[in-house]
Amino acid sequence: MSRDQITAARAAAFKRYVPVLDWGARYDNGQLTSDLVAAVIVTIMLIPQSLAYALLAGLPAEMGLYASILPLVAYAIFGTSRALAVGPVAVVSLMTAAAVGNLDLAGPSEYAAAAITLAFISGVILLVMGVFRLGFLANFLSHPVIAGFITASGLLIATSQLKHILGIDAHGHSLVSLLGSLLGHLNQTNLITLVIGAGSVAFLFWVRKGLKPLLLSLGLGPRMADILAKAGPVGAVAVTTLLSWGFDLHSMGVAIVGEVPQGVPPLTLPSFDADLWTSLFGSALLISVIGFVESISVAQTLAAKKRQRIVPDQELVGLGASNVAAALSGGYPVTGGFARSVVNFDAGAETPAAGAFTAIGILAAAMFLTPLLFFLPKATLAATIIVAVLSLVDFHILKATWRYHRADFTAVLATILLTLGFGVEIGVSAGVVLSIVLYLYKTSRPHIAEVGLVPGTQHFRNINRHKVLTHPELVTLRLDENLYFANARYIEDYLLERISCGGLKHVVLMCSAVNEIDLSALETLEELDRQLMDAGITLSLSEVKGPVMDRLMRTTFVEHLSGDVYLTQFAAMQALGPVDGALPTCEGQGDAA
Amino acid sequence: MSRDQITAARAAAFKRYVPVLDWGARYDNGQLTSDLVAAVIVTIMLIPQSLAYALLAGLPAEMGLYASILPLVAYAIFGTSRALAVGPVAVVSLMTAAAVGNLDLAGPSEYAAAAITLAFISGVILLVMGVFRLGFLANFLSHPVIAGFITASGLLIATSQLKHILGIDAHGHSLVSLLGSLLGHLNQTNLITLVIGAGSVAFLFWVRKGLKPLLLSLGLGPRMADILAKAGPVGAVAVTTLLSWGFDLHSMGVAIVGEVPQGVPPLTLPSFDADLWTSLFGSALLISVIGFVESISVAQTLAAKKRQRIVPDQELVGLGASNVAAALSGGYPVTGGFARSVVNFDAGAETPAAGAFTAIGILAAAMFLTPLLFFLPKATLAATIIVAVLSLVDFHILKATWRYHRADFTAVLATILLTLGFGVEIGVSAGVVLSIVLYLYKTSRPHIAEVGLVPGTQHFRNINRHKVLTHPELVTLRLDENLYFANARYIEDYLLERISCGGLKHVVLMCSAVNEIDLSALETLEELDRQLMDAGITLSLSEVKGPVMDRLMRTTFVEHLSGDVYLTQFAAMQALGPVDGALPTCEGQGDAA
Repeated sequence: MSRDQITAARAAAFKRYVPVLDWGARYDNGQLTSDLVAAVIVTIMLIPQSLAYALLAGLPAEMGLYASILPLVAYAIFGTSRALAVGPVAVVSLMTAAAVGNLDLAGPSEYAAAAITLAFISGVILLVMGVFRLGFLANFLSHPVIAGFITASGLLIATSQLKHILGIDAHGHSLVSLLGSLLGHLNQTNLITLVIGAGSVAFLFWVRKGLKPLLLSLGLGPRMADILAKAGPVGAVAVTTLLSWGFDLHSMGVAIVGEVPQGVPPLTLPSFDADLWTSLFGSALLISVIGFVESISVAQTLAAKKRQRIVPDQELVGLGASNVAAALSGGYPVTGGFARSVVNFDAGAETPAAGAFTAIGILAAAMFLTPLLFFLPKATLAATIIVAVLSLVDFHILKATWRYHRADFTAVLATILLTLGFGVEIGVSAGVVLSIVLYLYKTSRPHIAEVGLVPGTQHFRNINRHKVLTHPELVTLRLDENLYFANARYIEDYLLERISCGGLKHVVLMCSAVNEIDLSALETLEELDRQLMDAGITLSLSEVKGPVMDRLMRTTFVEHLSGDVYLTQFAAMQALGPVDGALPTCEGQGDAA
Repeated sequence: MSRDQITAARAAAFKRYVPVLDWGARYDNGQLTSDLVAAVIVTIMLIPQSLAYALLAGLPAEMGLYASILPLVAYAIFGTSRALAVGPVAVVSLMTAAAVGNLDLAGPSEYAAAAITLAFISGVILLVMGVFRLGFLANFLSHPVIAGFITASGLLIATSQLKHILGIDAHGHSLVSLLGSLLGHLNQTNLITLVIGAGSVAFLFWVRKGLKPLLLSLGLGPRMADILAKAGPVGAVAVTTLLSWGFDLHSMGVAIVGEVPQGVPPLTLPSFDADLWTSLFGSALLISVIGFVESISVAQTLAAKKRQRIVPDQELVGLGASNVAAALSGGYPVTGGFARSVVNFDAGAETPAAGAFTAIGILAAAMFLTPLLFFLPKATLAATIIVAVLSLVDFHILKATWRYHRADFTAVLATILLTLGFGVEIGVSAGVVLSIVLYLYKTSRPHIAEVGLVPGTQHFRNINRHKVLTHPELVTLRLDENLYFANARYIEDYLLERISCGGLKHVVLMCSAVNEIDLSALETLEELDRQLMDAGITLSLSEVKGPVMDRLMRTTFVEHLSGDVYLTQFAAMQALGPVDGALPTCEGQGDAA
């Protein structure tokens, strides 16, 4: 390679990790305008959300704002999605509260320091996963498990916010403990807080359902109406803050946000205490994976609409950089949010620069608007959270999985019940483990079909489902699973049982559905061949796939096999016996599906 | 059902759980003679083994004898194998030492009580697995992992016995800690002990290798020669005991077995302390599964030689009953032993009654022979253990797996290294988990082959391996794996990448190797279909299996699919475009294996 080629290769590698160098070089005025418009709209939506989610995470309100500044800039540099809006989100905020709440901490400043460290660990995990291309790990979260987890989290979050609506104190990481705590303090309900909170909830629901039709009937364009409807929370914040200030509601027991520091985000550093890292690591891993899955689903959906592609492993780098940025600027764990990304996309964002412009908007809010937030009732923020998360609650997945597959249903039901009963971390971990266990269980008892020739074709199908031709001395079994340690013995037992009825000369195992034969299964096949040989029966294979055959050829299996390996099942049948309509009869057979 | 039918059904169910009722009713004199001969030979072999393995487990010698009496009777009643000889075995004894050694116990009597409780928990686990037919769980131990575990355990056991050969003190559950401890005490070596120990080892190795040929050359029949060679340990025990007594070796620092209580096994009860159960449960589960796997492998191998079948779930009941019996009669965890079962089989055992007769032999030993064991040097017992377990050590599995499949190799290497480095429990657990993780990893990145028609057939194969016919507007991809949550995204990415080169009108997914489509994968296919439709490409499926199709028909997937579902790939090709020799060219394609 010449020096120029090396330089070019280095530049390409660098661009892979820093996508801004690619799209930034071609940035034009049209894109600038689109991105600016989107940024303004997202900023308006993000200010109350940032404050509210910080409250949900049990952190000071300003940490929500800080988490919406530098992390967005980091994502704009390292991310690949053109529409993803990064920042604090509901589920990750709840998980942060659970993770930090598990620690035995002295006070609010230790709590904030732990959240900063959590963001840092989470960022490092995401970066490592990105650099080592471990994004596939997120695939072990099945869709139903995610759907169940999000639904249960939504319920948990909404319940956790009821205390702010009622103006009482309540704690707990599970539905039962939360409800118990709420009921225990119900007599302390502050009526004025309840009026503010319930009023905000009602207003925000009306904004969601009723404002858009109203605006449309007033002649606004559908996109504008949609975006204005999304600004509802800002309206609620403004009105209730004014009421709180005008009537001095704080003196009547209404909890308000209070002093929010004014200025740019502070420079912070995570703790490097080994014990703290050990306690937080598991939670950080869950937050990273859940955050990544949530983020990439939105990013892929939006990218597909414009025929763009996102790079999952680079997304890990982008989100990792965002979380490290959050840790360095007084924030807490962030990820790509569903609702705000859709708003960003609908508002016309064309490049990740929209995120950077949003960051400038939030920075301005942190510098100039925070004094105005002093009188903002916490109940209003709780109301915005409740309305936002209840849209996540969707039990449809239970019905869909029940109809489609009981194993999927079991996994999603367990995820929902365990999340509600024992909190987010146990719930989602159990969902993942259960999905895997159920999958392995299914593959450990595979479907085995006895097949025959479909007349007039060279195609073989199940004798119990199709009218097919067979031969009395030949039985062909299609093994519908990879042959591996977990099912080797099952397959051996099945075959020995099947051949015990006598009258057979040849057994052919049709391997069109066998994508792997591991050493355990190979030893089982060798043993089976010996046993069949003793009974005067040959064992052959057909339709063995290339990669599987490659491995078999490294052993003496084929050499020692009593029968042959046939390219096609048709060739096997032609070689071993002409087709016949009769079937070997054997009691107890014939009803295998 | 009539009353008679009900009675008959009850009797059949009862016989299922108590096989002795079945074979016992047909027991004859010929069988009695064969069983008695086998029992005498196994008894002679089992006496030194029982004492030695109790020593290995860190228990008083008599517990080895007790574990070889009632448990054998219980297995004779409930077991299905006609040759399996149950009792204390090397690996389970080592696991017992590890499990009980982990506890912080006050003294030998607490240690013995914990071993009794361990046997009881293990028995209950096996019984529960048997009744609920959970025997398949043992299948998750792959052959290579078991082979690696047994080899590493053999090395650990042999090393742990060196202290008795040297007459020094040493402790540790890993190879490193054992060797360190041995080296630290090496200067305390007792030379006379070393002579007895090393002499016994040399003698026993000679018995294994040299005695049988000698006996054969003296004119003995091969079976008799084989059985006499197995009695070598009894000879070593007799000779060294006489030496120890005659020269009063104990006064010269040679450790002897000392007083072994004389009489029938005591009636014991397990502890029902909840904390103890909690600490022992994980170990008991591992012991149960490992013991079951070891036992069933021998039982199946021996049964196959006589064309008998054993019932795995009933074997769990048999072994469970044995362990409960061990707990009730002063024993410790037992299972079917490899060497003694082979001896039992070769000696002509015809029914499980041989085990019951062996139990009578060991009972006689416990009642009358124990005073003779007073002067038996512990070094002799250690020598019998070392010679027995070194035959388990076989690194061949590393070479076999290296040649066959790197994933199998990785699992077996990790099992060996972790067992040696961190002990049996961590070693075998890691092996199981790693096998599963590697299997899931493989299925998460499946092989996908682009296929074409093999000329002159209706058969389709990989375009990169076979000369096949294709059509420029049609691409057929054979998905070589179940479509499920762990690979749904990978398959989506692969397909979108593959179709991005243009010129296509139809994509056919050939599902002959797809044994399952879960809900995550179904949603991915629906999304893919939408994206292909936008690009003017139809998506069809072919060769979908019956069970998979049944599930798809419960949804609207097929109804909404842009293409069709074809019974055969040949039918799909006939419908979508006549065969052609040309391939769509697309950069970056064509080298997929």
